[in-house]
Formats: sequence, C-alpha cells, structure tokens
Amino acid sequence: MFVERKIKDFINIDPLQTGGRLTEDARRMLVEWGDGYSVCDFCQGNLHEIKKPPIASFVEDLSEFLNCDVVRVTSGAREGKFIVMHSLARKDGVVVVDSNAHYTTYISAERAGLRVVEVQNSGYPEYRVVEEGYENAIDEGERIGEVVLAVLTYPDGNYGNLPDVKSVVEICKDRGVPVLLNCAYSIGRMKIDFEKLGVDFVVGSGHKSMASAGPVGILGMSEEFSRLVLRRSDRFKDKEVELLGCSVRGVPIMTLMASFDHVRERVKMWSREVEKARWFLKEFESLGFELLGERPHKHDLLHFKTDKLYEISRKVRRGGYFLYNELKKRRIHGIKPGRTKSIKLSTYLVSKEDLRIVIEAFEDILKKFDL
Amino acid sequence: MFVERKIKDFINIDPLQTGGRLTEDARRMLVEWGDGYSVCDFCQGNLHEIKKPPIASFVEDLSEFLNCDVVRVTSGAREGKFIVMHSLARKDGVVVVDSNAHYTTYISAERAGLRVVEVQNSGYPEYRVVEEGYENAIDEGERIGEVVLAVLTYPDGNYGNLPDVKSVVEICKDRGVPVLLNCAYSIGRMKIDFEKLGVDFVVGSGHKSMASAGPVGILGMSEEFSRLVLRRSDRFKDKEVELLGCSVRGVPIMTLMASFDHVRERVKMWSREVEKARWFLKEFESLGFELLGERPHKHDLLHFKTDKLYEISRKVRRGGYFLYNELKKRRIHGIKPGRTKSIKLSTYLVSKEDLRIVIEAFEDILKKFDL
Repeated sequence: MFVERKIKDFINIDPLQTGGRLTEDARRMLVEWGDGYSVCDFCQGNLHEIKKPPIASFVEDLSEFLNCDVVRVTSGAREGKFIVMHSLARKDGVVVVDSNAHYTTYISAERAGLRVVEVQNSGYPEYRVVEEGYENAIDEGERIGEVVLAVLTYPDGNYGNLPDVKSVVEICKDRGVPVLLNCAYSIGRMKIDFEKLGVDFVVGSGHKSMASAGPVGILGMSEEFSRLVLRRSDRFKDKEVELLGCSVRGVPIMTLMASFDHVRERVKMWSREVEKARWFLKEFESLGFELLGERPHKHDLLHFKTDKLYEISRKVRRGGYFLYNELKKRRIHGIKPGRTKSIKLSTYLVSKEDLRIVIEAFEDILKKFDL
Repeated sequence: MFVERKIKDFINIDPLQTGGRLTEDARRMLVEWGDGYSVCDFCQGNLHEIKKPPIASFVEDLSEFLNCDVVRVTSGAREGKFIVMHSLARKDGVVVVDSNAHYTTYISAERAGLRVVEVQNSGYPEYRVVEEGYENAIDEGERIGEVVLAVLTYPDGNYGNLPDVKSVVEICKDRGVPVLLNCAYSIGRMKIDFEKLGVDFVVGSGHKSMASAGPVGILGMSEEFSRLVLRRSDRFKDKEVELLGCSVRGVPIMTLMASFDHVRERVKMWSREVEKARWFLKEFESLGFELLGERPHKHDLLHFKTDKLYEISRKVRRGGYFLYNELKKRRIHGIKPGRTKSIKLSTYLVSKEDLRIVIEAFEDILKKFDL
C-alpha cells in the first residue's frame, strides 16, 4: 500500500512542520537505513555507543553543540520531559510550569504522578511568561508537597514567546529546584547554550526543529543529574532504565544525524529568520489582523487574532472551513482546518517570495468575501 | 552527511533483522512522508484517529488482524510492555515472567517499580518454558507483594521456543492475574489470535517482525483493560496519558501501514518458513553443531552450540572475531561479532539458495581451520 502526501508541494506554514523538513541527505539516509533495526548492525549493547553508523560520535557532537555534559537521543521532547519527571518523581511531588507550556508537559507530569502548579502569564495581548511568578508558584507547590522540578517553555508553541531564562533559573536555584528548558522550537533553529543558561535539563525535538523524520528528540543534562536520570539496571548493568535499554533504535536518528551539519549552520542565520518574521507580521497586521504574543517578536512562530476571518466564517456555508478551502485552492498548507478566530503560522525557512504569496492570498480572500 | 550501509547487499541472517526488512511500498512511503510531523497534516488531536493519511482505518485493520478489541501503535514492544506495567503498577507490585524473557521485560518492570519473579525454564538443551511453573511463581509473588501481571514470551529471542499459551492463561486466570503475551517475534510472522489465546495484552514489533522501519510496535488489549491503560488526561480530555498524547507521530507508522498488506499475506506462509528452518537446522547439525531450544522446532530463530568454532577461536590470532571476518568475506551478515561458543541466526524469508551458501560457508570455514 502506498499513500501519496498530496500537499507536499504546497507552501507550508504549519508551525509544527517548518523546522522539520528533511534535507536531501536525510532523505537519502531514510532509504539507506530504512530496514528495521539496521542501526543495530554492529551494536555492542547501547544505542549511544554504536560506532557503525557513527552514532557515538554524533551524540558527542550534540553535547558540544548544546554545550552540555550529557546528551541522549529520545523519541521526542515529550519523552524527554517524561524521562526527567519520572526520575525525579516522589510521593507528593510537584512540578512548577509556565502556563504557556505545551500540553505534553502537563501530561508527562500526570503520567509521572506529579501535581502541577502554574505560573500565570500576562494575558492578552502579549501572554508573556511572568518570570518572577516562579517564586510564588514554588511557595504554592511547597504548601501542597515537594517541588521536584520547574519547567520553562522556550519558546512556547502558542505565541512564540521567549522568556528570560536566567531570571527563572536564578529564582529556582535559590530555592533548590532544578530547571528543565523545553526547547522543542528553539534547538535546531537558534543557538542554545546549556552552560550559559544555567539550566539542569534541556529537551529538543528533531521533527519540530532539526530537519528530521519523527519521532526523535534530544535530552541534555548535567553530569550531576545524569547519575539519577540515566541510572543503570540492577540486573543488566549496561542498560539505562529510563531509556528501556535503548530509545530511537531506528531510522529517525539517522535523519537527525544526516541533517546535523545543515542544522549547525542554519542556527547561525537565526537573526535573518527573526527579521523576516517581523517583516511578515507587519505586512499581515496591515490586513487588519493583530499579533498575539510578545513585541518586539523574537521568533518565527506567529499567532494572529483574525476577527475579519471569523466574521466571514459566520456568513458562509462551510463555516470555519472556508479558510482552509480557500488556502488549499492557492496551494498553501498549515492553517488548522476550521480555525478562524485566531490562526497560528510559522515563517521559518519559508522564502520571502512564498510569504508574499501567502500575504496576497489572505488579502485576496478578504476581498473576495467583501471585507 | 550521508552514511552508507555497507552490508545492505549481504545475505542477512541477523535474528533482529530478517523480519524487519522493508517492502518496496514501505521504502517509497519513507520518502513521501519523511518530513517531521507530516503524518500530522490533518490531525484533529489523536494519532490513531487521523483520516489523512488513513491511520484510523489502519489501526482498525490491526485490531481485526489480531482479533483484539483495542490496538494502539507504540514505539516498540518494550514501550508497550512499559505502558501496561506502568498502568498496573502499585506499591509492592510483582510481575511474573518466564526466564526466557527479553531483557526489556525486566527493565520495563524495573522502570515501573515492580519486582520480578521468574518461572524457570527446563535448562539445557531445550530451555523450555515450564508452563506449570506459573502456579508456584504466583505463590512466590504473593508472599512478597501483589502479582499485577504475568508475562509470557512467545517466542523468546534466545531459543525461538513457543510455549503453550493456553495452559499459562488457564493458571493465571484462575489466580486473577492478567497475562501479557510478548509477540515481538511472532506478530507479523505467524497468525496470532488474541481472543482464541485468551490473553489480556499482546505486544508486537514493527521493526522486528512487520517489515517496518524502527522504532514502531503495536499494543493490543481487551476493552476492559483499555479503560485503565488508555485512561484520558484530567486536563486534556481527549489525550491518552500513557501515550503522552500521541506515540509514533512520524514515519515509522507509515512503513508499518505500507507493509501491512504484505504482512497479512506472509503470515499465511508460516508453515513453509518453519519447514525451511527445520531443513536448515538439520543441515547445520550435520556440520557438528547442536541446536539449543525446543524440538521439534517451531520457529525460524535458531540457536546453536558451536564448540568447533570456539576451539578455532582459541587458536587464531583474532580470537572470536575470526568468524565474523570469515563471514564478512563471504558477504554474510548477522552473527554477532566475537561470538563463537554459541551463535544465533534466523532463516526467516532468506531463500533456500542463500541458506545453502550460509551452510557451505560454515563448512568451508571449518575446513580452512582444519577441524
């Protein structure tokens, strides 16, 4: 059975997808290493120590890239968060999270049996993480249990806000709470320096931001915490319990490896991407839409309040799906079908020419429906 | 960066790999859906409900194939075992397992905080699971805690032994203990009928036995247990906690789907594969090697005691690695480098012509070293 991906030649502004498109090397690697368990051809017992293909040296390169003691490849950012939370979990354990956190942060905590205390954001229109809020949240957490971890989302996937990591780290360090930075939308796009930021854990996503097939991610940590999180099995002395022995024992890790040279280069171009996002948002606002999220904006993830589109949806036969259909006709993919009150998109690695087509498409749609 | 897989045209008898080689459709699917999160193009919130590509109907097909109420796609058999154990875990919980179990059965239990009681096997030379042993093991488990699950490996990856499932299920049902059947080496090779076997959970492996890229597997369960194992999040009502929302949100699930028509057909040819394995083992024994594992043998996983190879290894400069080198020269892959006391291999989907080349290679190696 073969299924065609019909939208593959569309202009793609899906926030989930702009950073995960494969390089040509990655596409070749998929085919070369596609067979089940082929990465295990010469395994001596641990995925991250395999020399042929060169997974061991790649994992070292990742540590260097993040400036971080220890790295493991996981099935994704969420799996990395669960591994950390499950390792730190205890009875009455609490995790403090920013309220812009991805839903999988909450679910990882729930799966690990941890309660969640939220740090509220600043609300409409910027929805900024209020960094000082971690202080009160830790207080609240300690009233109901023991705070085992703080999570900060950098940036969140809803507004593309980049909070001030250092001030959160400072508060948490003072209180003896380790910090996990969720970089699903930053590692692979922008430079993340683990040491410099002073965090204890970092998670990244291969399929979201590192030009990889999914599911694959990375988990970086300090030497100190690696002794707990990467504890070995009592019975199988070389196997790491939280990884169930091995994690991504297959082809997604090979695409992560194949694209890594490209990823290392592209993070150097980040300021151009931010500049392009700012240009786009200015153009888009001139159509009458309003940015939700921080200003000046520092990321390619953009969220707009789109009242005009919502008004149209209330008048047309197909309701909210009119927008999806209009964009499909124009070969543009990535706005969630049915959504019109507000829309999310990403300009990452989309050319200015294509972005201009997107802007003109929205302009055209507004005109067509006479608004 | 591109890395060539140098052994891809070798005769491959690696037990981990013979059942995981991709079909042509799966190889095309890899490229078509390679981009990160492409399977999420039209997701409405749950991986197993996605209609484009047709994951929802594929997951239904899997239920039908296994004759099982509910199926989810996981990152592999080990992840399936952990999901079940983590759901059933409680303080002082115990899992009863056959001593032929894969190491990840023990590690899943360890990760879930469960103690393990083993059912001993019959020892050399057949290493059969002693089905009645589950009775005593449950007794022992109840002395130290509460037995929450019994695991039976069907077949194990060490000897390829296929125990009598029904007699284990009978014992466990009598004692009120649910049974998980580990079918990493059977689902996709031979017919597995969940209802007929009477088990409560079944796990399978895409990369081991379903012609898929790794990592991917399946977890089947009864309606009754699905309410516990697939419990939804308190906060995100449509998300399954144990799957962290979604599991294989990427390309391995597309290869599983692509190869499924082929897999459904190939299980019908299983008796031919068993016949071929028996022919091979007879030929191989005539070289002076001895089968470890049950007779008559019912699976393509074969384990041989190879004293003659061990004797050679003690005399030659490269020690145990001589065998790997000799086989490499002959373009044969799959015997673990360094091993000579006993070797494991699989004849699954390897042609009789190629197996004859393998037999002649070993004959030739014995002659060359004058034994």
